[in-house]
Amino acid sequence: MNNKYPDALENLIESFEHLPSVGRKTAERYALYVFMHMKEEDIIDFSNALNSLHTDIHICESCGNISEGKICKICSDNERNHRQILVVESVKDLFTMEKVNEYKGIYHVLNGAISFSKGIGIDDLNISSLLDKVKNGDVDEIILATNATLEGETTAKYLKELLKSYDVKVTRIAHGLPVGGDISYIDELTLLKAFEGRRDY
Amino acid sequence: MNNKYPDALENLIESFEHLPSVGRKTAERYALYVFMHMKEEDIIDFSNALNSLHTDIHICESCGNISEGKICKICSDNERNHRQILVVESVKDLFTMEKVNEYKGIYHVLNGAISFSKGIGIDDLNISSLLDKVKNGDVDEIILATNATLEGETTAKYLKELLKSYDVKVTRIAHGLPVGGDISYIDELTLLKAFEGRRDY
Repeated sequence: MNNKYPDALENLIESFEHLPSVGRKTAERYALYVFMHMKEEDIIDFSNALNSLHTDIHICESCGNISEGKICKICSDNERNHRQILVVESVKDLFTMEKVNEYKGIYHVLNGAISFSKGIGIDDLNISSLLDKVKNGDVDEIILATNATLEGETTAKYLKELLKSYDVKVTRIAHGLPVGGDISYIDELTLLKAFEGRRDY
Repeated sequence: MNNKYPDALENLIESFEHLPSVGRKTAERYALYVFMHMKEEDIIDFSNALNSLHTDIHICESCGNISEGKICKICSDNERNHRQILVVESVKDLFTMEKVNEYKGIYHVLNGAISFSKGIGIDDLNISSLLDKVKNGDVDEIILATNATLEGETTAKYLKELLKSYDVKVTRIAHGLPVGGDISYIDELTLLKAFEGRRDY
């Protein structure tokens, strides 16, 4: 016997290996689990969900969010402030922010961040439609909510530079101690940011 | 906006949540990754791999291994010793053992282990075809290679009891220090097993 799984299983393992942080061993575990333990109807649902993904969901032409129509629900919502745009790296970040249920402006999803190590540059990010809105004078405030990582900070700095020549207020979300955070356990960079960002009390 | 993803994405998230140790957050990450970053042809391959799983792969009627035919490659191999059966909990364990490329007998896959906490009993395990072989006098040695966990040990003990009345040698794989293992880092139970299993040197 060779040590390979049957082709049909091998194909599924390779598909699972595409997922982020899924290596060969995890992919094997997933594929075997699907075959041995998942109900046949659930496997069919799984297969159909993958199949209908790109027919049923699109990228919002205005902001880069995922959407059932050409323009997403947030961009179509006239109750929201379209002159305030919160810029995030990913759709996941957008949904996280929406869960807070506090922000009433609209979003812009970059779909990534500048990363020299991963070879992701400006041209790989979704920036042009944001810039168009700024150029048209449609925006009062751009809130940069990229991650507090090297990539996120680089991207925020780049966008700040890019937007400098336009009449738009550019802000950055605050960095600091997480709520419930213990100073003795926090990393030094966060502590520094928390110190720098101190406010009258 | 409600905080739910579009239906098509929600369906995919729920499918990913079926996988072992995949919670809501990981499932969201997987589904969004598939939508945002996976090539359309890879998604179709993924969907097809799921679809063809149960048409192309079966469970070996003899040993419980996965197989392209009714009887798996190992059970069909006349070069192997069919009178020596190594009993494992899962197909994954079988493949791990095959990678060692040392064992020349055949296997029996229980597809689980007795677990009181998970409500898995004897009747949920694939035991009958193993017992039939023993009853027919087709087996010289049964090697119990269930895991060194509570469930695996319980299952091994149960099988030992079950096979006691038949003329078959029953052995258990050795427990002890992993190769390269440092005694000071090993858990006490393993150390105890290693001590108990000491051999002349």
